[in-house]
Amino acid sequence: MIYLDNAATTRPDSGCLEVAGQYLTEKFYNPSALYAEGYNLHRELVKTRSDLLNLVANDRDFGIIFTSCGTEADNHAIFFGGRRGNVVTTLGEHSAVFSAVNELKERGIEVRFAALNGDGSVNVQSLLGLVDNQTSLVSVIHVNNETGAINDINAIAKAVKMKNARTLFHSDGVQAFGKLPYRLSSDVDLYSLSAHKIGGIKGTGALIKRKNLALKPYIYGGGQEDGLRSGTENVFGIKMLECAAKKRYSQIEENYGHVQKLNLTLRERLDKNLFRFISGENGSPYILCVAADGVRGEIILHEVNDKGLIIGTGSACSSNSKKRYSRIILSCGIDETTADGVLRLSFCPENTVEEVEKAADILNETVKRRKEIMD
Amino acid sequence: MIYLDNAATTRPDSGCLEVAGQYLTEKFYNPSALYAEGYNLHRELVKTRSDLLNLVANDRDFGIIFTSCGTEADNHAIFFGGRRGNVVTTLGEHSAVFSAVNELKERGIEVRFAALNGDGSVNVQSLLGLVDNQTSLVSVIHVNNETGAINDINAIAKAVKMKNARTLFHSDGVQAFGKLPYRLSSDVDLYSLSAHKIGGIKGTGALIKRKNLALKPYIYGGGQEDGLRSGTENVFGIKMLECAAKKRYSQIEENYGHVQKLNLTLRERLDKNLFRFISGENGSPYILCVAADGVRGEIILHEVNDKGLIIGTGSACSSNSKKRYSRIILSCGIDETTADGVLRLSFCPENTVEEVEKAADILNETVKRRKEIMD
Repeated sequence: MIYLDNAATTRPDSGCLEVAGQYLTEKFYNPSALYAEGYNLHRELVKTRSDLLNLVANDRDFGIIFTSCGTEADNHAIFFGGRRGNVVTTLGEHSAVFSAVNELKERGIEVRFAALNGDGSVNVQSLLGLVDNQTSLVSVIHVNNETGAINDINAIAKAVKMKNARTLFHSDGVQAFGKLPYRLSSDVDLYSLSAHKIGGIKGTGALIKRKNLALKPYIYGGGQEDGLRSGTENVFGIKMLECAAKKRYSQIEENYGHVQKLNLTLRERLDKNLFRFISGENGSPYILCVAADGVRGEIILHEVNDKGLIIGTGSACSSNSKKRYSRIILSCGIDETTADGVLRLSFCPENTVEEVEKAADILNETVKRRKEIMD
Repeated sequence: MIYLDNAATTRPDSGCLEVAGQYLTEKFYNPSALYAEGYNLHRELVKTRSDLLNLVANDRDFGIIFTSCGTEADNHAIFFGGRRGNVVTTLGEHSAVFSAVNELKERGIEVRFAALNGDGSVNVQSLLGLVDNQTSLVSVIHVNNETGAINDINAIAKAVKMKNARTLFHSDGVQAFGKLPYRLSSDVDLYSLSAHKIGGIKGTGALIKRKNLALKPYIYGGGQEDGLRSGTENVFGIKMLECAAKKRYSQIEENYGHVQKLNLTLRERLDKNLFRFISGENGSPYILCVAADGVRGEIILHEVNDKGLIIGTGSACSSNSKKRYSRIILSCGIDETTADGVLRLSFCPENTVEEVEKAADILNETVKRRKEIMD
């Protein structure tokens, strides 16, 4: 099987499973316990926090709260930040932010959506035009999870703060963390990430927060995570996140170069008479969104699946909704016919050039055959 | 090491790790994905839900939402149920409920606390006296996590419904699930459980709900768990929960009898001149709460830890608070001197009689020596 749906989830890193496996066996203790075995885990997690933070920010200005997933981290940021005035976000957000702000609307908060450019990045002028002195929160996705478009969140956060210094800035970094080389500036207040998109396991995420931001908890209880996220710490999941993230960042440039090559190979080899590229050339190379005009994406997905190729149609998360078209793809200005044929190919550093060449051949052959049948 | 802090967390079951390990390796896919590998996982989880429900309820009248932990399940129930009028709970709740209802108070909801009996069970007359026609939610812990006292939740739920049929009834079943043989009656609307207290892993819990209860989500996003709990399903954690729970329930009576024997052995062997029992004799045998009068529990915990015995002092979760005395123990009517010496010994079916005999000897010797030094 050739697996090109790494933006949905990745295979947990086998080396990390070996390293972190001890937290399922001999080191299974509760880190809140007072005896040595528990307290030692607590101390290990203190170091894990610093190490993770220092990969993309620094542990002097930022803190990190472990959550159960990127979605929880996004919800925590949105429901904490959006308690008054208006909230500004984009039409390109993952459903974890999109559904949360829609719930805010139900609660009487005004939500404003900035328009997208054709590649799925936010139109910054549109966004800034929506920010005013009543804006409590701005949330902008770092890398669009359907098209791979990159938003320059440090620059956007800075521009937002120029308009209203009291506005909080959050970014969903789930498709950026472990994939792009970047550092969070001090204009970013809250930043969400997820473990299972980079070789960690499902059920672990984190919310990075500016240290002097007085956050309220979203989940209340025993007072873990400095009182900000209760529930026994998921030590195995956290150690998998640490291991996977360190591995990704230790070779972030090489990975980026390799995945860029995979992306370009696919772009070159896909038949331009059959496929149209939705992803821009300046986006994250980890995601390539294409559309097969005139053939439903879901049909292609199943046909190539039978031939040993796994790909996605838009976000896996949005497959739970009954809607036929991706709201994000439509917001890029794509018509419904094209949106119907959208496929998302997403990579991990372990994918090979041979795999993507084979994938391109399978896709070309499948769509060509399907079009012949339909003619 | 003799591990008698199983109410804080248990060692993940090694047989289950072997069975569920495949969900970290070959079956790592996203269950929301449309291709066969993802959809097959989705179908597996449908069966897992039914199987889990049928252990303590039935899948005709109840549904199950997988959460990241018991704390999240408790929060979901409390914040959903406690949106109007008043909320009635007990002084014996785990901090996951206790902190959540305190947050409700901050939001302007009246919260009423029922008194406890000496063993930590709720005084049912006190509780029922607090329920009126404005009560939106009653939450009563099934097994007290510090003393092991059992509340007859089906009977209490029935009595609550007699006073106000519209009141929702929730119970935190974290220390009951997989340990006591019981069936949830249709008077119970919401029920929380956790995986890592019974041989599953940290980071997995569930909220059982009456099927015709129109629940709102607590975490919004991609619409997983029938739209009630978004975030990619933690398949490995869920399969560990399934395996561990099935194993526990396949031998629930034998386990109960064995743990009862462990509990009785410890009760008999502990020196009555040194220890006083807080746990009643009709509580869950899985938890034995004792007090060493005149010696701080924390000192004993560390001294026996050096001698190869791991025990708790009250709840591990409450160790995050700086308070010296357990609020639950004080609510049992125990004075501060005794509360200062409280220890919690908690068992799993894998503990042996030899282990608890040795544990009793270590405890007797340690407290005796410590008292001699203090005299």
